[in-house]
Amino acid sequence: MTRPLDLNPDRLFPSDPATRAIARTLYAEIADLPIVSPHGHTDAGWFADDAPWSDATALLLAPDHYIFRMLYSQGVDLDALAIPSRAGVPATDPREAWRLFAQNVHLFRGTPSRLWLDHVFAEVFGFDVALEASTADLYYDTIAEKLASPAFRPRALFDRFKIDFLATTEGPQDDLGAHHRIRASGWGGRVVTTYRPDGVIDVEHEQFGRAMTRFAELTGEDVHSWTGYLAAHRKRRADFRAAGATATDHGHPTAATANLSAHEAEALFAKIVGGSWTPADAELFRAQMLTEMAAMSIEDGMVMQLHPGSFRNHNAGLFASHGRDKGADIPMRTDYVHALKPLLDRFGTSTELSIILFTLDESVYARELAPLAGHYPCLKLGPSWWFHDSPEGMRRFREMTTETAGFYNTVGFNDDTRAFLSIPARHDVARRIDCGFLAQLVAEHRLEDWEAAELAHELTSGLVRRAYRIDQPEAAAKAA
Amino acid sequence: MTRPLDLNPDRLFPSDPATRAIARTLYAEIADLPIVSPHGHTDAGWFADDAPWSDATALLLAPDHYIFRMLYSQGVDLDALAIPSRAGVPATDPREAWRLFAQNVHLFRGTPSRLWLDHVFAEVFGFDVALEASTADLYYDTIAEKLASPAFRPRALFDRFKIDFLATTEGPQDDLGAHHRIRASGWGGRVVTTYRPDGVIDVEHEQFGRAMTRFAELTGEDVHSWTGYLAAHRKRRADFRAAGATATDHGHPTAATANLSAHEAEALFAKIVGGSWTPADAELFRAQMLTEMAAMSIEDGMVMQLHPGSFRNHNAGLFASHGRDKGADIPMRTDYVHALKPLLDRFGTSTELSIILFTLDESVYARELAPLAGHYPCLKLGPSWWFHDSPEGMRRFREMTTETAGFYNTVGFNDDTRAFLSIPARHDVARRIDCGFLAQLVAEHRLEDWEAAELAHELTSGLVRRAYRIDQPEAAAKAA
Amino acid sequence: MTRPLDLNPDRLFPSDPATRAIARTLYAEIADLPIVSPHGHTDAGWFADDAPWSDATALLLAPDHYIFRMLYSQGVDLDALAIPSRAGVPATDPREAWRLFAQNVHLFRGTPSRLWLDHVFAEVFGFDVALEASTADLYYDTIAEKLASPAFRPRALFDRFKIDFLATTEGPQDDLGAHHRIRASGWGGRVVTTYRPDGVIDVEHEQFGRAMTRFAELTGEDVHSWTGYLAAHRKRRADFRAAGATATDHGHPTAATANLSAHEAEALFAKIVGGSWTPADAELFRAQMLTEMAAMSIEDGMVMQLHPGSFRNHNAGLFASHGRDKGADIPMRTDYVHALKPLLDRFGTSTELSIILFTLDESVYARELAPLAGHYPCLKLGPSWWFHDSPEGMRRFREMTTETAGFYNTVGFNDDTRAFLSIPARHDVARRIDCGFLAQLVAEHRLEDWEAAELAHELTSGLVRRAYRIDQPEAAAKAA
Repeated sequence: MTRPLDLNPDRLFPSDPATRAIARTLYAEIADLPIVSPHGHTDAGWFADDAPWSDATALLLAPDHYIFRMLYSQGVDLDALAIPSRAGVPATDPREAWRLFAQNVHLFRGTPSRLWLDHVFAEVFGFDVALEASTADLYYDTIAEKLASPAFRPRALFDRFKIDFLATTEGPQDDLGAHHRIRASGWGGRVVTTYRPDGVIDVEHEQFGRAMTRFAELTGEDVHSWTGYLAAHRKRRADFRAAGATATDHGHPTAATANLSAHEAEALFAKIVGGSWTPADAELFRAQMLTEMAAMSIEDGMVMQLHPGSFRNHNAGLFASHGRDKGADIPMRTDYVHALKPLLDRFGTSTELSIILFTLDESVYARELAPLAGHYPCLKLGPSWWFHDSPEGMRRFREMTTETAGFYNTVGFNDDTRAFLSIPARHDVARRIDCGFLAQLVAEHRLEDWEAAELAHELTSGLVRRAYRIDQPEAAAKAA
Repeated sequence: MTRPLDLNPDRLFPSDPATRAIARTLYAEIADLPIVSPHGHTDAGWFADDAPWSDATALLLAPDHYIFRMLYSQGVDLDALAIPSRAGVPATDPREAWRLFAQNVHLFRGTPSRLWLDHVFAEVFGFDVALEASTADLYYDTIAEKLASPAFRPRALFDRFKIDFLATTEGPQDDLGAHHRIRASGWGGRVVTTYRPDGVIDVEHEQFGRAMTRFAELTGEDVHSWTGYLAAHRKRRADFRAAGATATDHGHPTAATANLSAHEAEALFAKIVGGSWTPADAELFRAQMLTEMAAMSIEDGMVMQLHPGSFRNHNAGLFASHGRDKGADIPMRTDYVHALKPLLDRFGTSTELSIILFTLDESVYARELAPLAGHYPCLKLGPSWWFHDSPEGMRRFREMTTETAGFYNTVGFNDDTRAFLSIPARHDVARRIDCGFLAQLVAEHRLEDWEAAELAHELTSGLVRRAYRIDQPEAAAKAA
Repeated sequence: MTRPLDLNPDRLFPSDPATRAIARTLYAEIADLPIVSPHGHTDAGWFADDAPWSDATALLLAPDHYIFRMLYSQGVDLDALAIPSRAGVPATDPREAWRLFAQNVHLFRGTPSRLWLDHVFAEVFGFDVALEASTADLYYDTIAEKLASPAFRPRALFDRFKIDFLATTEGPQDDLGAHHRIRASGWGGRVVTTYRPDGVIDVEHEQFGRAMTRFAELTGEDVHSWTGYLAAHRKRRADFRAAGATATDHGHPTAATANLSAHEAEALFAKIVGGSWTPADAELFRAQMLTEMAAMSIEDGMVMQLHPGSFRNHNAGLFASHGRDKGADIPMRTDYVHALKPLLDRFGTSTELSIILFTLDESVYARELAPLAGHYPCLKLGPSWWFHDSPEGMRRFREMTTETAGFYNTVGFNDDTRAFLSIPARHDVARRIDCGFLAQLVAEHRLEDWEAAELAHELTSGLVRRAYRIDQPEAAAKAA
């Protein structure tokens, strides 16, 4: 006997009937608005080449660390799931991997992955029975069949998902070839890049040397001199702007910033590239570079995104066998009040600069981030991130930031995903949770219904478009 | 077309109908109890002189950093809002400033400022249309007209608001002239002072030298000797007691306390007044002074209030141009467990001493403050403070402290405001949220209805009166 | 006039009627499942000797630091409550102590103690009037009478409570005599021990020297040599396994672990037993011993429990007069991400090892613990602990851990109590809160009803049985 799969139209709305009715009305007005995805990790090559995906395991399981980390945490072997390791893709039959996943799908009860998967299965693939051991093959075969059809090519799905704007993330060592091919193709989808320079800033990253070499090749600058290095950033930022970027992104371990004199910065850089640095030097250099990037953002109009607080590759054994991005990044306690001060001492009163702050440490929402964003003109709050990009996480974000920062110092939703097929699901969860939160305010007479309707539009569309400057070609032109 | 302004009688109550009905019943019994305001920052001069306020901008906008920081965060210029800077009050037409505020009033959606403003507009001024761009002038003119009438003088409003007790906050360098004039006037309103000695304790405050000079003048003591300095505190504490004070207040950066020997304390003081101190000395001196103040509180019966954890004047640019109290104070992570131990090692088992603890770091509610207050006889929990003095903030406070500290180790509500007209609004929000919280406990059968009714009275009146010893003339007499 | 005492059948369920109905249905299916209590502090001697308890004060008041700390916090004298001090049991009439408690029972409004007490009074003793001053004697006399009857002997209550498994906690310096007597008695109740070696690991504990002496006597090992010390642990672990233990427990101040070489560990141990250690050495030794215990757990199959983060004996005055466990332990901020890394670097990928993590610092639920348990195969999350073992605390635990760790990386409920009579009450609270949480997920269409029913069973029974390996005699046999 199979179980039905059906997405209840009231899912994620508050359970109180009167509040639910308000949420339903708010949601009806914004449910079908186009998707704006200003921050994520899809592969630009998909849209450049528009090649079909192969199978369910390669598309839905192997790249999604939300899913395989949960299976791994319960003792499931990664090889049996066909997860690539440093040794390559294991010789596991992808169908067997999918079956193993299907047998364990109960592990996802209560998690956002469950919500996203159900949405993908029902809405994207049209399943009406739930995934479980007995339907694993049905799923596997149906998905393979659909993926082979033109309607499931990347660009077709992009259109079907009503995506208006999709940002990917690349580093200065990337030639942006896929983005150039997209533009050259004449396809109308707006897929843009984001400038994420961590690879040439974080000397503790194992690929730093290689990234610097490539940085030099792509810019023709002497990237081992401080002035050449800064000039190379400027060149690549201009390249990224030309490829549609409106934003930069910075994923440092901490939110530390620094405000060194030009002389001090140059001396520090010499240690970094000279190889004589300590971990404290590496941290100080990352800190200083945030301030340098802020200076360049004032020049070229790119919005900065700060994503600090992840202890990367925490599982030493797994890192040795499987490398990065295997679900072993763990959030850390993160300070912003002291960390951001050097940068803010320099640029804090600017109304040109815009920095969007993210956190993995929810204890800072009400204590630090909302007060900072509720004061500084250059600071805004990114939505709940990563582990907190979930119904409860989104509710906590709104409950702990709105009273101090208001709605207008936030920037709408980020899906932040590699899982392209889940993008509509993720935006739908965010829209439902936001409408539920607004409905609660209306039900408690803290907000009028017409205000809530206006805010639902803003949270879905207006705030994100303005925060990421996606309708400002003139801002883009600044870089030229 | 204007929008109506009307305060729903059920506002802020839980949305579930049965729970709401319980909340409504509880609230009806305590809604009209007199206001006890044991901690705040109104100007005693208002009640001494009973002069009319001039206009909406000067009364409601310019002094309220909750409001102008939000406008500033969205790029609104402070000069255009008529906010005073170090250069003085800008030459902005106050009506234009008010219009600018009215155009941006949507920024306050979802914030407590919105709730307080609506209450002031509807209940104090009688507006039945909402503030927006099109009603800015109507508001401005009506407010100006009302403020000119006798019914809107400070004392008349004090009576109309049914304020039973109102504490202001002054430093040892204040001659308490306004308080003396209030007493000499024969007016019956109970407006008292609070002893806040930070100005002569915090050597890192830019006004320390000036405050010490004044401290010496007012006491006739050699405040640069350790014994003279302590004697001067005793004299001024007695003066404050005579002006009605029942409490002291301490707004240090951290909650650190120290328990130095008399000899060590004297040596430290010599460094402080000798100008050879380090930041660590300044911190240790503040820490030691909390313990000294506790010793004096045991002598004279004054309740201590600790308000640590604010990073003052975080925005360096704004501090340079506009000075203190411009909405740029940001909460910091704050430890209490280790910080309070030295003081508690000395006085922790006292049943004479009473210290009310506040925090801006909600992560300590359940972890540190509730366990401390739920154990030590000398510790009580102040209500949710500043950024957390809001519907969600108050709910979190109750949810995270009640199970460990109970209700009886809390002290009722503080409005903590400079915004005199908002005092009834703030107390009303607190009463509604408390009744909602109690109603939830009743609805979940965790509390009987008659117990909730008793607690609603206690949270509104009994606890605050006892915690601040406001009905204990004998305690006051101790100082004599 | 007395007040009725009656336990509402819907207590602790969500107030929304539809959600409540779902919770009620879920609860009905699991309400009567046997109790599995894998972690607690009852006295094995009770079950060995099956002697009657004497009176209400000695049974319910004096050993329960949740209760007397609250009374103490409100200025009630501990002697008047008949709480033992270092000087012995005070000469207080236990009836007078009980009356004093009854007069102050309002202090427990809103606390879990109130819920547990009401359950004990109504369900265990059959009272239908509430405890208050006027019923104090009725309570005292009725309880004394019942305790004298065979039905209220420890083993009779154990059976009546339907306890399937009860773990106590003993140290390596304990001869397990009570456990041996239980086994020798032929009584069928499954009461087992837990290996808690803190007494011979924490050199800062005032009893360390005495514990080590006893450790040597009981094992015949030279416990002052590193190899002898480790061998002694192995022997005692085997003894504990033979007395039914399936788990160890570690109550260190922090979660710090270390991964020293054998040589470094031996040198550190020499400092510890040589008496030349610093506090840093003591901390490093505790850290290293967690890793050593993990190694032994892989050998013998015992599950590890980590209970870090309590600042023990915070009240110096009370510690001097009354000693340990007097309600003066205060939670501290606790890091896990960095603290656990050395141990995880060594054993993190093991699927043999199982470590159950607890915390008193709720800010780590979503930030650290759920991500760690949602990744590492050897880590699971213990339930909300101590101060957080309460309706709101349990809700926060589920809300902040489920989305990242899922349900299956949690281990059911621990009552963790010395208060034997409250065990059914505590498990009932947990079952109700879990059913309410599941009902909320169903009401919001995040979970199907049949899944919630399955999970209710798992949270009550399946997860705890598997996590503590209580149905694995073969795992127990490993130690032989």
